[in-house]
Amino acid sequence: MSTTVSPLAPTDVPDMPAISGVKLGTAAAGIRYKNRTDVLLAVMDKGTTVAGVFTKSKCPSAPVEWCRAKLGRGQARALVVNSGNANAFTGKTGKQSTALTAQIAAKAVGCSTSDVFLASTGVIGEPLDGTKFDGVLGTLAEAATPDHWMDAAKAIMTTDTFPKVATATVKLGKTKVTINGMAKGAGMIAPDMATMLSFVFTDAPLSSAVLQSLLKSGVEDTFNAITIDSDTSTSDTLLAFATGTAAANGAPKISRASDPRLKAFAKAFHEVLADLAEQVARDGEGARKLVEVIVEGATTKTSARKIAMSIANSPLVKTAIAGEDANWGRVVMAVGKAGEPANRDKLSISFNGIRVARSGARDPSYNEAEVSEVMKNPKIQIKVALGLGKGRDRVLTCDLTKEYVAINGDYRS
Amino acid sequence: MSTTVSPLAPTDVPDMPAISGVKLGTAAAGIRYKNRTDVLLAVMDKGTTVAGVFTKSKCPSAPVEWCRAKLGRGQARALVVNSGNANAFTGKTGKQSTALTAQIAAKAVGCSTSDVFLASTGVIGEPLDGTKFDGVLGTLAEAATPDHWMDAAKAIMTTDTFPKVATATVKLGKTKVTINGMAKGAGMIAPDMATMLSFVFTDAPLSSAVLQSLLKSGVEDTFNAITIDSDTSTSDTLLAFATGTAAANGAPKISRASDPRLKAFAKAFHEVLADLAEQVARDGEGARKLVEVIVEGATTKTSARKIAMSIANSPLVKTAIAGEDANWGRVVMAVGKAGEPANRDKLSISFNGIRVARSGARDPSYNEAEVSEVMKNPKIQIKVALGLGKGRDRVLTCDLTKEYVAINGDYRS
Repeated sequence: MSTTVSPLAPTDVPDMPAISGVKLGTAAAGIRYKNRTDVLLAVMDKGTTVAGVFTKSKCPSAPVEWCRAKLGRGQARALVVNSGNANAFTGKTGKQSTALTAQIAAKAVGCSTSDVFLASTGVIGEPLDGTKFDGVLGTLAEAATPDHWMDAAKAIMTTDTFPKVATATVKLGKTKVTINGMAKGAGMIAPDMATMLSFVFTDAPLSSAVLQSLLKSGVEDTFNAITIDSDTSTSDTLLAFATGTAAANGAPKISRASDPRLKAFAKAFHEVLADLAEQVARDGEGARKLVEVIVEGATTKTSARKIAMSIANSPLVKTAIAGEDANWGRVVMAVGKAGEPANRDKLSISFNGIRVARSGARDPSYNEAEVSEVMKNPKIQIKVALGLGKGRDRVLTCDLTKEYVAINGDYRS
Repeated sequence: MSTTVSPLAPTDVPDMPAISGVKLGTAAAGIRYKNRTDVLLAVMDKGTTVAGVFTKSKCPSAPVEWCRAKLGRGQARALVVNSGNANAFTGKTGKQSTALTAQIAAKAVGCSTSDVFLASTGVIGEPLDGTKFDGVLGTLAEAATPDHWMDAAKAIMTTDTFPKVATATVKLGKTKVTINGMAKGAGMIAPDMATMLSFVFTDAPLSSAVLQSLLKSGVEDTFNAITIDSDTSTSDTLLAFATGTAAANGAPKISRASDPRLKAFAKAFHEVLADLAEQVARDGEGARKLVEVIVEGATTKTSARKIAMSIANSPLVKTAIAGEDANWGRVVMAVGKAGEPANRDKLSISFNGIRVARSGARDPSYNEAEVSEVMKNPKIQIKVALGLGKGRDRVLTCDLTKEYVAINGDYRS
């Protein structure tokens, strides 16, 4: 946890309302950090449905494997998250540790171990001592309250410089329902200290299949459209929980993703994911600039995504942004290396709305002073128009600064 | 051109012998730099064959397009290389500039423009004034001598901190033949200042098809197996020229790549490419450590290459090496994100011969002090054993330091 908050941190932090059917508790279990909370327990009412998406890593952490195995039943009663130790690359011990943690949580909450979901973030390769949760979770289960959202978001931080929360209220049928989310993440991964975790809760009565569908479509343009450093965690986890308690107030039970009554909810749900994902990009390790890359005129959306990611992951583009340099040559390079259809002579590039290149050469109206001025903004938009088709996409990233190297290189583990 | 030579620069610089049929000249044409040479002209005897491999970028530079168009004939009489301007993303002007440069060179040398090959490195998006070569190339063609190799390697440098040359002599039949090569490159690309260019010359009598075959197989484990920052130039060019003059001394003419008499030559040719490629990695922008990544036990060689590149391109692995941290957790992360077959519980990882992880967990014999000591070496070998099959591969890279960010971010173009 850094002592200096990112200059890109949101200035408006929302008041997080309670979600009926969800209680939260945090504690300091002393897993790695001193003098801070490092465990979150969320207790959900009976009938809560769950959905999840996880890292694509071929070497996932033990908690990711635990969650994947339990997700099929679609039911959840408890979520245990710890920071300080990722329980990744810990072999059999790691598996035993997840089983033990789930047993302790199940006993504390009074549910089956299959209803317990787990996420861990922190150092990799160190055994996670599951007994650390003994006692702690029992106390937390008793003391958990509905209004602990900001504390919960703080307990799961690692190299994050600010807690990340988002909330939305929306009508489902004629009933107001609430969506609350939290996230952590600073490097896309730094297994010693970071990883992307996010948890979203709602009181809407949604089947687990509907929730899974919302997550799957929602994640594509939000959490899957951000990159800090192109590195992918062994532990990335996004879980959504729906307690269904709003049904008591008349909210309709939704069991098909195509239900038209879901439309407004789906939009609000997507906005919560987008808000949290942007906050992760804003807290990129060492970030001084939020960078939005828009690619349009590609042959397809998939092609636009590949090109946008190639730009967003290019160390040379990212260092140029850090240097406040509208270096469109490096953008051309990143377009070219993506391997997707692109015609140099049709390419236009603009920075924060000022076109610097068009039709394969420098824009004749290019004004160095004007461009230099907009590059000082904390938010930089790079827009690339390929002029080939209608494919469009957008990804968020941050600049690459000496602080990134310092955070990730200036220490011995 | 940096004033501080990379600490990884080779200490043994070879004496470069003459190659019969090749004459070199360098000059200061004032393209961008002051007080240094920036043009190289190589003049080759009639009968010289040529082969080339180029960037995979979809937005290649004008000289790359020129060379690709001329390569089919397999003949060369002149090579013109300039530093200071890449003639990339310069539209029609760029195309006109290559044509004009080739005309000037053809007149100076007395050959067809189709026998002229071109390469440019430097700033991108700026028109290259072809008239700058007028006069210069004529003088150079007259003054060119066979012994200018080191000067030639210096004339093509940009952010390079040392000139890169390599040489080998080998028997072809019963006749001694020579292979000389030079390269430049510091960032895999930094379009403002860098790019990878390499030129190899021999007096062996090889058909252009044989030369192309040697290049194609030789480049795979040499220039295609290095990465500085995962960024790919619009201008990467590797050209090989065979004057064939050794035929006068009895060297057999080789017109089939499968000719058994080619074996020793092919090996020496490969070694020259490998030597030059390693020098490029040693001169990576801001590099303080040469990093060799070996992946073995993969399902195939292609799979091993993808995993090795995933490790070599990971900013988190590279910053850890800069911090002299044997952070095997980040290596696991990079293996996992490659998307290739990998089984966490079979994975072993070692740094400079010391195994730090095996069978999905920290090696029981892990000794922190011992590992810390070897991480101080200027050369770091990361070896990953996947335990799945016989696929093996090796790539070279360098660490990611604050100096890399400074070189690429601390300026305004």
